Amino acid sequence: MNNAARERILRAGAAIMHVKGFQGTGLAEVLAAAHAPKGSFYHYFPSKEAFGLAVLAHFEEGLGAMGQEVLALPGLSAQARLDALVERFREFFAGRGYTLGCPIGKLAQEMGDLSEAFQQHLAARPTPLTRIMAAIIAQGQAEGDFDPGLEAEEAARFLAGAWQGALIRMKVERGPGPLTLFTRYAKRLLATSGETPTP
Amino acid sequence: MNNAARERILRAGAAIMHVKGFQGTGLAEVLAAAHAPKGSFYHYFPSKEAFGLAVLAHFEEGLGAMGQEVLALPGLSAQARLDALVERFREFFAGRGYTLGCPIGKLAQEMGDLSEAFQQHLAARPTPLTRIMAAIIAQGQAEGDFDPGLEAEEAARFLAGAWQGALIRMKVERGPGPLTLFTRYAKRLLATSGETPTP
Repeated sequence: MNNAARERILRAGAAIMHVKGFQGTGLAEVLAAAHAPKGSFYHYFPSKEAFGLAVLAHFEEGLGAMGQEVLALPGLSAQARLDALVERFREFFAGRGYTLGCPIGKLAQEMGDLSEAFQQHLAARPTPLTRIMAAIIAQGQAEGDFDPGLEAEEAARFLAGAWQGALIRMKVERGPGPLTLFTRYAKRLLATSGETPTP
Repeated sequence: MNNAARERILRAGAAIMHVKGFQGTGLAEVLAAAHAPKGSFYHYFPSKEAFGLAVLAHFEEGLGAMGQEVLALPGLSAQARLDALVERFREFFAGRGYTLGCPIGKLAQEMGDLSEAFQQHLAARPTPLTRIMAAIIAQGQAEGDFDPGLEAEEAARFLAGAWQGALIRMKVERGPGPLTLFTRYAKRLLATSGETPTP
C-alpha cells in the first residue's frame, strides 16, 4: 500500500470533514482534493466509516500533540499556560475567520447517534483537551493557585465541555468573544476558595 | 396553504434532523414521515434551507417554552430551579437512551459555516438556554445564594456553552454523568465568594 497516498487522502478528508461533517463529505471530492485516482479509495480504507474513524484519530493526534507542546512550554505558571493554550487556538481560528470550531466535537455531535463505531471510539477515552486541561489544573493545584479540593480530571471534563460550547458560539458569532469568556470563567472556577476573582 | 400539513412536515423534519442533521435529512423521508404527498414540499417551504431555518426556530420555541415553565415553577430557590431545569432535560434524554443532545447546538455545529442564513439567525440572539440561565442566575443573586459580582447574562453564556459540551459528552457516553457534573460545577461557579463549595 502506498502510505503517502493514504496520508494525502486522510489529510484531504480531514480538511473537508472539518467544514462539511462526515455525511456531507463525498469520497470523490476527497480523492480529487488528494490528487488520488478515482476509485482508489477502497484500496486504502475498508469503508467510509473506517475512513471517518481514521480522520477522527488524526484530529485527536494533532490536538494531543499541540497540547503536549503547550504543556512543555518552560517557565509558565498554570494560569499562564491556560492563557497560552487558548491563545494557540485563538490564533488558529483567527486565521480562518473564526469558523470551523472543534472537529472532534463536530464529529461527536453528528455521528454519536448514527455510528456505534464513532460512539464507542469517543466514549472509550477522554478528549485530548480534557487530558491537557487536567494536567494544567494539577500544575495550578501544586502551585497553590488552583483549589486543591477540586478533582483535576473531573474539573477538566467540565471545562472541556465548556470549551466545546465556546467554540460552537465562536463559529456562530464569527469572533473570539466566547474564547475570552471561557478563559475568564475557567480561572474563576479553578481559583482557590476565598480568593475567587470576579471575572 | 394547508397549515396542518405544513406543521406535520415541520415536526417530522425536526425529529429526523435531530438525529441526522440538516445535510443527512432527505426531503422524501420527511414527507413520508409526515404522510404528505411526494412533491408537496415546495408548496410549503421555498427551499430546504428555509425549511431548516423553520425547524431551528421550532426547536428554539420549544426550548424557550420549556424554560418559561421551569421559571414559572412556584416556591423554588434559584439552586432548586437549576436542579429542576437539568432534571427536565435528564428525564427527556433518559427516555431516549441519552442520545440526541441539543438540536440547536447540532445545527449550529453543522451549519454555522455552511449557511449564512443559519449563522446569522444564530448570531442574532442568545440561545434559549442562555436566557433561562440568566433568569435563574439573577434570581439567585437577588436571594443572596449566587455571587452578586457576576454579570448574569455573561455567566449564563458561559454556562450555556458548558451545557452544550455536557450534552455532547452525554450522547457519547450514553449516560447522565455529564449532566450531573454540569450541575455541580455550575453551582460552584455561581456561589457567593468565600463560601465556594467543592463540587
